This record gives sequence, C-alpha cells and structure tokens, in this order.
Amino acid sequence: MPNKRGYFITLEGGEGSGKSTQIKKLDAFLTEQGVSHHITREPGGSPAAEEIRHVLLSGQTDKWDSISETLLFSAARRNHLTQVIWPKLEKGIWVISDRYADSTMAYQGYGRNDHLLSRSDIEVLYRITAGDFKPDLTFILDIDPQKGLERAQKRAHLDRMEGQNLSFHENLRRGFLDIAAREPNRCVVINADQPENLVHAEILTALKERLHVC
Amino acid sequence: MPNKRGYFITLEGGEGSGKSTQIKKLDAFLTEQGVSHHITREPGGSPAAEEIRHVLLSGQTDKWDSISETLLFSAARRNHLTQVIWPKLEKGIWVISDRYADSTMAYQGYGRNDHLLSRSDIEVLYRITAGDFKPDLTFILDIDPQKGLERAQKRAHLDRMEGQNLSFHENLRRGFLDIAAREPNRCVVINADQPENLVHAEILTALKERLHVC
Repeated sequence: MPNKRGYFITLEGGEGSGKSTQIKKLDAFLTEQGVSHHITREPGGSPAAEEIRHVLLSGQTDKWDSISETLLFSAARRNHLTQVIWPKLEKGIWVISDRYADSTMAYQGYGRNDHLLSRSDIEVLYRITAGDFKPDLTFILDIDPQKGLERAQKRAHLDRMEGQNLSFHENLRRGFLDIAAREPNRCVVINADQPENLVHAEILTALKERLHVC
Repeated sequence: MPNKRGYFITLEGGEGSGKSTQIKKLDAFLTEQGVSHHITREPGGSPAAEEIRHVLLSGQTDKWDSISETLLFSAARRNHLTQVIWPKLEKGIWVISDRYADSTMAYQGYGRNDHLLSRSDIEVLYRITAGDFKPDLTFILDIDPQKGLERAQKRAHLDRMEGQNLSFHENLRRGFLDIAAREPNRCVVINADQPENLVHAEILTALKERLHVC
C-alpha cells in the first residue's frame, strides 16, 4: 500500500464504450493543466504484467475458465500495482488506468455464466492482491451493448474477450451498473452514447466535483 | 471436481531431493504392474499452464513477489486440474505429479520471508482453485538443504526458484515437514538422503500400506 499523494483514476466500460478516446482526451487535458500523470491499462501496464496479458488474451475463447482467468488478472494487477501504480502515486503522479478491478468483477463475476467463481471470491482475490487500496475515482462509460459492439467491430479485430455473444455483454453492463450503485462515492456513470466531446465534458465536471481539483 | 476413479499421487521436496529420479522409478514400476497412469508436473502439466510456467520461471529472482507468484501458480494449477488431472482420474488413470499445492505452501508460505501473504490466504487460494480436491497420497522427500543444493548444483543451471539463499531452503524444508505433520493421513515423509533404490523401496511400501494396492 502506497503513501499516496497522487490520484488514481480508472475508466471502465464494455466494448466500444469509448474508453481509449476518453483517456486520450483526459491525458491532453491533464498535460494542459500541468498535472504530472501516467496513463496505463489492465491487464498489463508493467513489463511482467504485459507478459500475463499476452498469455490471457491469446488463443481460444474457452482457453481459460473464469477461475484461471481471475487468478491471472489478479497476478498481473499485483505486479502493475507494485511496479507502476503505487510508486507513481507515492511520487505525487496521478495514474489513469484503462480498466482495473471493476472489469474483473464485471467480466468474470457477471459476464461469464459458468458459476465457477462467486462474487465474494472475486472480492477475496482483490483483497489478497491489493489490500484496502481502491481508485479515488472511477468513470463507468455506459452504452447499450448492441451499439458498443457495432462500434468495436469497426476496429481491426475482436480479441478473445470481445468475441462473446450479446447476452455476455448485457450481463457485463449490468455488472458495471451494480458496482456503481454499490459504490456511489467512488463511481460515476457516464452516458457514453453521445458525442465524444460531451462525454469528455461530463468527465471533467465529475473530476472537479469529486476531487475538487483542476 | 472429478468423479474420481484413479489415484492422484504427488511428490514434493526441496531442490536436489531426487523427485525426478523417484518419479521415473515409480513410472517404471506402475508400467510393469499394468497400472494406467500419467506423469505430470507443476507448475505446468497442460499447454496453457506451461505458458504460465515460462512466465513464472524466466527472469530475475525478484520479478514476482509472493502474492503474484502464488496467484500465477494457482492459475496454472486450475488449468492443469481441469484439462489434465481431473479428466485422467475420471477415466481411472492414476496421475503422478512432480510437485503440487504443498510446494506452493512451502515455497510461498515458508520459504519466502516477505510476509506479504499469510498461510491462511494461501489456503483460501487453494480452495478457490481446487475446491475440496486433494491428492490421495503425497510423498515428501526430505533432505538437509545443504546436501540437496550440492546435488542440484551438479545439474546444468539453477532456475529462479533455486537461486535463493540457504535460509530460504531451510524454511522450505520446515514448511514441508509442518504440512506432513498436519496431514499425516495424506503425507508420507521419506528420508531422501539414502541410495535411490532404498528411497524407491520406501515409496512402494507406503503405496501398498496407504492405498492397499500394487
């Protein structure tokens, strides 16, 4: 656990919710404001965690069951925290991550329907991995899965996670909204089905209101 | 969890305890007796778990902390169980594994001294990974770490796990002996500091006494 001086902000959401675009805009805004920050992503974000990312995302959809998958995501997260996120925060650098633990809960606890892993087990794994550490602020970019997938399909290819059926993505959305409802102080749900600049403006408004900065 | 008909037997022990040699001898014996069996190892034992093995064992000694390491071992174990061990046991095939969960407890719970992960957390991770499933019989090949390391150093190279100091290996030995003391019905401690054939004979005796077979 870090002696934290920077803010840790995460962006979450289903496929095609526009996270990457919004992170670019947030990156540009923070640079303009002179805020030292670091942009990262999960799974991955550190060299060793990127090795795990490769193991996770290559191969067939059924390569890993939800238990193996969650253990791998957790191992990668632990490395990402100790090697990148915590050291940056200790130096007063803000860290912005494209996905973090809410994605694990939403994908493995809601999206998957193999009933192998309970949501309380996912919480236990998070506690083992990160202790009491949580993001200061999480933006959940919410969009109808049908629309999100149409957007995502315009990109070059779908990876193993994206190549699931529509009901998977509907469960996923429900997962993110449940998480936001349980932790309203940390999570802000943003309607991602609107022009990029409006989504960005809502993010900036929340940033000011919640963290009283910028 | 399998509808188990074969026996699951594991061999555990520190570096240079002679596990590989004893597994070869047990393999030959079971073949001679006409017992269908499969020899495997951890970490690894299935194609996807071998990918994790590579990620785990390559690089520097401090590449992973004990939390990441245990999560990775657990992910590999889950794949090994679902893809290899359980399907074999269901078919009535015996499975013999060079290392299994006791190594995780001994290495990460005793050998490491970073105090990041409690032994009860290691037990929780095992339960998430494997439920109530345990080996039918575990041979713990016990040897003084100094002698074991001398034997191991005669081999071509030491991997990341082996390249630790002597106190690490002493803690490891204590870990294996503690596990055996807690689960005497499952574990048999064998003195590994004697000629190979005598170690093999003790293993066969225990096999007959404990499983009433062969």
